[in-house]
Amino acid sequence: MGRKVRAVAMKDTADSVQRSAFRKKTGVTAAKGFQAAGIACGIKKKRKDLALIYSEVPAVAAAVFTRNQLQAAPVLVTKEHIRSDAARAIIANSGNANCATGKKGFADARQMASECAGLLGIQPREVLVASTGVIGRPLPMKTVTQGIEAIVRNLSSQGSRSAAEAILTTDHIVKETAIQFSVGGQEISLGGIAKGAGMIAPEMATMLCFITTDAKIARPALQRALSQVTETTFNAITIDGEMSTNDMVLVMANGKAGNPAIQSGSAAYQKFAAGLGQVMEELAKMMVRDGEGATKFVEINVTSAKNRGDAKEVAHRIANSLLVKTMLHGADPNWGRIAACIGSSGVGVRMNRVEITIGTILVFLKGEPVEHSREELKQILRNPEIQIGVDLGEGRSIARVWTTDLSAEYVKINAGYTT
Amino acid sequence: MGRKVRAVAMKDTADSVQRSAFRKKTGVTAAKGFQAAGIACGIKKKRKDLALIYSEVPAVAAAVFTRNQLQAAPVLVTKEHIRSDAARAIIANSGNANCATGKKGFADARQMASECAGLLGIQPREVLVASTGVIGRPLPMKTVTQGIEAIVRNLSSQGSRSAAEAILTTDHIVKETAIQFSVGGQEISLGGIAKGAGMIAPEMATMLCFITTDAKIARPALQRALSQVTETTFNAITIDGEMSTNDMVLVMANGKAGNPAIQSGSAAYQKFAAGLGQVMEELAKMMVRDGEGATKFVEINVTSAKNRGDAKEVAHRIANSLLVKTMLHGADPNWGRIAACIGSSGVGVRMNRVEITIGTILVFLKGEPVEHSREELKQILRNPEIQIGVDLGEGRSIARVWTTDLSAEYVKINAGYTT
Repeated sequence: MGRKVRAVAMKDTADSVQRSAFRKKTGVTAAKGFQAAGIACGIKKKRKDLALIYSEVPAVAAAVFTRNQLQAAPVLVTKEHIRSDAARAIIANSGNANCATGKKGFADARQMASECAGLLGIQPREVLVASTGVIGRPLPMKTVTQGIEAIVRNLSSQGSRSAAEAILTTDHIVKETAIQFSVGGQEISLGGIAKGAGMIAPEMATMLCFITTDAKIARPALQRALSQVTETTFNAITIDGEMSTNDMVLVMANGKAGNPAIQSGSAAYQKFAAGLGQVMEELAKMMVRDGEGATKFVEINVTSAKNRGDAKEVAHRIANSLLVKTMLHGADPNWGRIAACIGSSGVGVRMNRVEITIGTILVFLKGEPVEHSREELKQILRNPEIQIGVDLGEGRSIARVWTTDLSAEYVKINAGYTT
Repeated sequence: MGRKVRAVAMKDTADSVQRSAFRKKTGVTAAKGFQAAGIACGIKKKRKDLALIYSEVPAVAAAVFTRNQLQAAPVLVTKEHIRSDAARAIIANSGNANCATGKKGFADARQMASECAGLLGIQPREVLVASTGVIGRPLPMKTVTQGIEAIVRNLSSQGSRSAAEAILTTDHIVKETAIQFSVGGQEISLGGIAKGAGMIAPEMATMLCFITTDAKIARPALQRALSQVTETTFNAITIDGEMSTNDMVLVMANGKAGNPAIQSGSAAYQKFAAGLGQVMEELAKMMVRDGEGATKFVEINVTSAKNRGDAKEVAHRIANSLLVKTMLHGADPNWGRIAACIGSSGVGVRMNRVEITIGTILVFLKGEPVEHSREELKQILRNPEIQIGVDLGEGRSIARVWTTDLSAEYVKINAGYTT
């Protein structure tokens, strides 16, 4: 089953690649004026572990970060640097999260930015920093410094895939995509790379996503679009409810497309936000499909909630329930587990208004079980993609969450990882 | 590893048995004037599935119930019956939760009480009802009715073990215990039976616990003691954060010991509550040790929290984290996962005040990792019993939670169960 899902994910990646104009022009180098590179500098044994993305001209940048109160040093440094007017580069390593590393960790993250800046001839505050990997270990700075010297020489307008590979940890698939669309008569490119096997990889499973575009857009509009789109894409995926210390999504827009600057609220803004949404949704779904040990892609739709918060709470409670996840894994038509999750979500519900649907089969309606063919339900649960619908009958708010099942493989991967 | 822990649990059970005066006088028939029985009536294939506990004289009763908003029919009926002055019997079935079964389910639970009452010559409202098993299926009432007729004839003052067996679902060990202590010069017996492989068994994992005592105690004092003790015993265990639709703890006190009636707040009350606490803690720990696929018994102590709610939140966040659980399973010294849980618990913490200890090893202090021998830490994590300490450095509140690791076996059990 695992293989089947991987195949679907691969196909998706291939599709997205065909959508971009050139085979090599996807990910973060699809947009004009961006270069990237990924190399193995020695933090990990024998695998790529350092990525660099560079804009040839100053870009505006926007970001969203983890809400974990334990924030890694690169998160703190990037939060500081993102306040400056221009961004030119993102330096990211895998294999070490540089988190819970105290004062030395903070100095190390700063040093990564300043070394990059020195070699690229830009300001340290124009460099954003990201890390992912094990928590609580100091970065091997000699190795990182040598890596930065090497990676600057490797920058290329074809470098997206290398960069995408270098940020992976336990991911099985390289995650990159790009689209083109026109704004004000100008063709715009927007693409990104991401890492994260759900939120569940052994090293705490940082979710990193870097997006570049040659659109010309005002910084507040870019930040607004990113925040809006994050809510229905990266904040709508969950594997196990874990929240990383290093999560971040960064967008750089360098204006090279020459379109009239996009302002908040305009028709052009709507189009841009829709394009950003498409890229981020695709990358988010790739993460779910690549979830540790995942064999199913599961969509949970909660409707008729009193408010958005309630809808999200119920959707996440179901998505994170071990009993629901194992039921999905075993294709076991034990829908009562979903009903029990709704009742224990902490959201005020009246069970006699609730409807539960699995695939096309209504199983629970107004407090009563609904007669159905158990065999048919099992067939639905055997599919690699499963939809669960919950109507709360209280109001008009909705939420959608994408998640996976839970397999014995997940446990093996996460228990067997030795630091 | 699984076998090792089972052995420990078995030994505990054996110890507890030796503590009671007679080999057979444990569980719910240790106290004077109580009889019990457990039989296979046919809800399950070939396994005991119906239990009855009976007090020869009217008893006062107290109860705590699940807070899940989807409440099984027996929970609703027992909530109604517990309001009456006297309780005489508890009828409980396994194999079917009688939950999400609508109006028929409610009528079925009532019928179980009235059939018992008719045969025992008592009032229906004196019978408390409990069920555990799969959700959303109607009870086979013909089978249940025949079972009730048979079980009444099987009541015996040696029947605790049969009753304890009949409430099990996927449990591996029979859970019963009893203690004796004196109140006002009178020897009192207090014992109980329980079921629940953590909160995690395939059928949604109801936690049921029935306790009997011959102590004479005022009903408000009994309820107060039960509510207090629940907080630090059954509410302090978690396997996977699931909350059942059928959970209940019932206590019956029939006064046969002839002690002066225990009133709230007296010295006798303190002694009684301590005894109740001892029995409930023992049964709660048996559940954790019997957790599906569990190979470790883990105690998490959170100290110096601003308030009790914060302390509990942090403790449960760590206890329910899949990444911590798999780390414990694999004896992987990846303590950063604990730090990340503290940061993401939703509780306001300052990481530069936090201390994390695993066993006897301090790993994190005031925002900085503490040098330690990774080999020694691995050794500690290989033990079948592990203690994790988290000091938040904010105030004076504490919380303690008992939990297990997460093994591939858990997934296999819960995915492989076919309804």
